[in-house]
Amino acid sequence: MAYTVPAMSNLTDQFARLPGIGRKTAARLAYYIINLPDGEAEKFASAILEARQKISYCEICQNITENSRCTICSDDKRDKSTICVVEDSQDVAAFERTHEYDGLYHVLHGVISPLDGVGPEQLRIKELIARLNNPEVKEIIMATNPTVEGEATASYISRLIKPFGIKVTRLAYGIPVGGDLEYADEVTLSRALEGRSEII
Amino acid sequence: MAYTVPAMSNLTDQFARLPGIGRKTAARLAYYIINLPDGEAEKFASAILEARQKISYCEICQNITENSRCTICSDDKRDKSTICVVEDSQDVAAFERTHEYDGLYHVLHGVISPLDGVGPEQLRIKELIARLNNPEVKEIIMATNPTVEGEATASYISRLIKPFGIKVTRLAYGIPVGGDLEYADEVTLSRALEGRSEII
Repeated sequence: MAYTVPAMSNLTDQFARLPGIGRKTAARLAYYIINLPDGEAEKFASAILEARQKISYCEICQNITENSRCTICSDDKRDKSTICVVEDSQDVAAFERTHEYDGLYHVLHGVISPLDGVGPEQLRIKELIARLNNPEVKEIIMATNPTVEGEATASYISRLIKPFGIKVTRLAYGIPVGGDLEYADEVTLSRALEGRSEII
Repeated sequence: MAYTVPAMSNLTDQFARLPGIGRKTAARLAYYIINLPDGEAEKFASAILEARQKISYCEICQNITENSRCTICSDDKRDKSTICVVEDSQDVAAFERTHEYDGLYHVLHGVISPLDGVGPEQLRIKELIARLNNPEVKEIIMATNPTVEGEATASYISRLIKPFGIKVTRLAYGIPVGGDLEYADEVTLSRALEGRSEII
């Protein structure tokens, strides 16, 4: 007879579904959960349920929010002339941590990737196009990831924006700050050379 | 104004409490959860609650179980003369995977570790001693982890067992010193079982 505890196997299976969590880590996490003090596992479960119930997508920028509009879109102090187009909500959080950008965002929720069956219609592109009719919008910053799919998505969307006569820009490529030239790949170094700027 | 989504931060905090999960991984997992198809996050939450509600400790060996006795203790085919003493339920699962051991177990739920404030009274040692009055029991295999605390716990318990005149053995050092039983491969664990030696 195989030795299993069904409720335990089930919890392990659930953890193992998470990205980057293998079977052994999942088992470890499951054991951790059942050994938590009373009420703590319940807090975990209710955090999951609450996040699912409360979080929806901002009707303007499609970022996650607990209201119909996110805190960024409803902030009057943000510069409404610039929209930074990103793949995921995590990318918004990354830009916000820089404290350098005070424009708006648009979250695509993915990239065009035919191999994974993701076409333009699965992304929030039409919601972005709808925002361009606002004469306040002066610049769209394409900030998709520097991958093949990210590049393809950026160029696809910029072609759609062209007819509106709005400026479309792309994040600069180059060597990451604090990085080591020795370990930079050839493509990144070539781009860094191409985009070199004068020291004044 | 800082950009936060409370339900999201809460879920991220919960993930970040898990062992081996840092802030960035926690955020990634939280985003994964809120993007799951309908019903999937609910399954996750209910797996947590179910595991907490259904799982208790076997009245004999203290291993996790959904009944008052675990499947191993209630299995008539298991050899009742041998008890393998382990730190955690994960270790029982590791031994079961070898298919080499058909005796019983005893789960201590930790090791003696004065620095962490864990003394013998916090472990399930008295439950083990209570099992020794059964004349069927012929051998106790000390299978705590090969760490300083594991060794100390093994020798502490073997001294308690001495007066009962029962043979006490220790896993052979086929297991790598400083390692963790949970991650030992099946072959190494089998070798360690075969080469066990008596504590004298």
